[in-house]
Amino acid sequence: MNNIKIYAVIVAGGKGTRMGNKIPKQFLHLMGMPVLCHSVLAFKHAFKQINIIVVAPKDDVDSAETILKSYVPKINVTIVTGGDTRFQSVKNGLNAVNGNGIVFIHDAARPLLSQEVIQRCFEGAMENGTAIPAVSVVDSIRMVDDNGNTLPLNRDKVKIIQTPQTFRTEIILPAFKQEYNSGFTDEATVVEAMGTKVQLVEGDIDNIKITNPADLILADIILKSSM
Amino acid sequence: MNNIKIYAVIVAGGKGTRMGNKIPKQFLHLMGMPVLCHSVLAFKHAFKQINIIVVAPKDDVDSAETILKSYVPKINVTIVTGGDTRFQSVKNGLNAVNGNGIVFIHDAARPLLSQEVIQRCFEGAMENGTAIPAVSVVDSIRMVDDNGNTLPLNRDKVKIIQTPQTFRTEIILPAFKQEYNSGFTDEATVVEAMGTKVQLVEGDIDNIKITNPADLILADIILKSSM
Repeated sequence: MNNIKIYAVIVAGGKGTRMGNKIPKQFLHLMGMPVLCHSVLAFKHAFKQINIIVVAPKDDVDSAETILKSYVPKINVTIVTGGDTRFQSVKNGLNAVNGNGIVFIHDAARPLLSQEVIQRCFEGAMENGTAIPAVSVVDSIRMVDDNGNTLPLNRDKVKIIQTPQTFRTEIILPAFKQEYNSGFTDEATVVEAMGTKVQLVEGDIDNIKITNPADLILADIILKSSM
Repeated sequence: MNNIKIYAVIVAGGKGTRMGNKIPKQFLHLMGMPVLCHSVLAFKHAFKQINIIVVAPKDDVDSAETILKSYVPKINVTIVTGGDTRFQSVKNGLNAVNGNGIVFIHDAARPLLSQEVIQRCFEGAMENGTAIPAVSVVDSIRMVDDNGNTLPLNRDKVKIIQTPQTFRTEIILPAFKQEYNSGFTDEATVVEAMGTKVQLVEGDIDNIKITNPADLILADIILKSSM
């Protein structure tokens, strides 16, 4: 425990166009603080010695720096420029990882990350090498095939995937040396392409991704109700 | 159009235990009116001549009657006692359907039903016999197999199913004469067991199901922002 290094790569990728807003969603305010800062604080609270790496789109690197300096001046954060794809952005973030240990890869647009989820992911990755937080679905789910037919899926077997997707460095670093392919929709799929089986751990229904204005209001309510 | 009959079977099934509340969720207030009344009004607004059937659990029939008389006294609603399963509740509701036409089957816990969704379902069912409202997912999705392995699903092919699931009477009435089986997770699966292919139509991300307290607050925000 004393020798391993812990990293959080927080990916601020979105352009926020779905928010009907020119401010990228990770910079919008939630309880008086930009969305991005909430997960920075959550990781720092979980592990004092954590190395935090924020990946921001090229045009937003300066804003990210200003925001982090203003709101969380005492937390040392490495800011890295993102790429054209999620894969490239994470890969750029992982270039700042230098040592053996655990890497959390987290969406900056998920500010409601709880200490419990961080701990479950950490312990899962320590034990099995990978830990992908997932939650069950409440609605019925169907799959559409190439002919437009639809097939009901067993709801009990369907999981919605969240972040932080968490890995041992020995697993995640070689995985991101692979050539990009369009099947890489998240970090778990990148790791699986190496032949590594990923492990799901229990996520949190409140760990929502801010994708539209109502989500931000909902996040505010969830935060207030947890105080 | 003049001769066909239109029915809405609104199923108030839940016990509301997930709400941490003794009041069933369909009776909780949203903008000063019980959740149940919102969809009653939405259907009435869409079709003046509609026949509305509310299915309530045995213990809640009296409450449903009182609520409907108090809040929507001018709308004629048939109240039917539900059964032990969703299938049996819907079947009881369909017993009050007598004539050829279109039947909407709707969750009472989805108060944010828009006129656009009602119209798309109606037109879809008129044209093809079935219309199941569905929306796309924003998160990554995985399927867990019997060995605990997980498989990423192509997010573009996964649909979250909503209500009102809408059918021509010639399709839905015979389907509910079948013996119940545990694969009947919604009305679409019942119809499919007869060999009928169901058709998806575009739902609405705001057409949420109230399953926890935060959903009710979110519903309130969505309603206010649409006024």
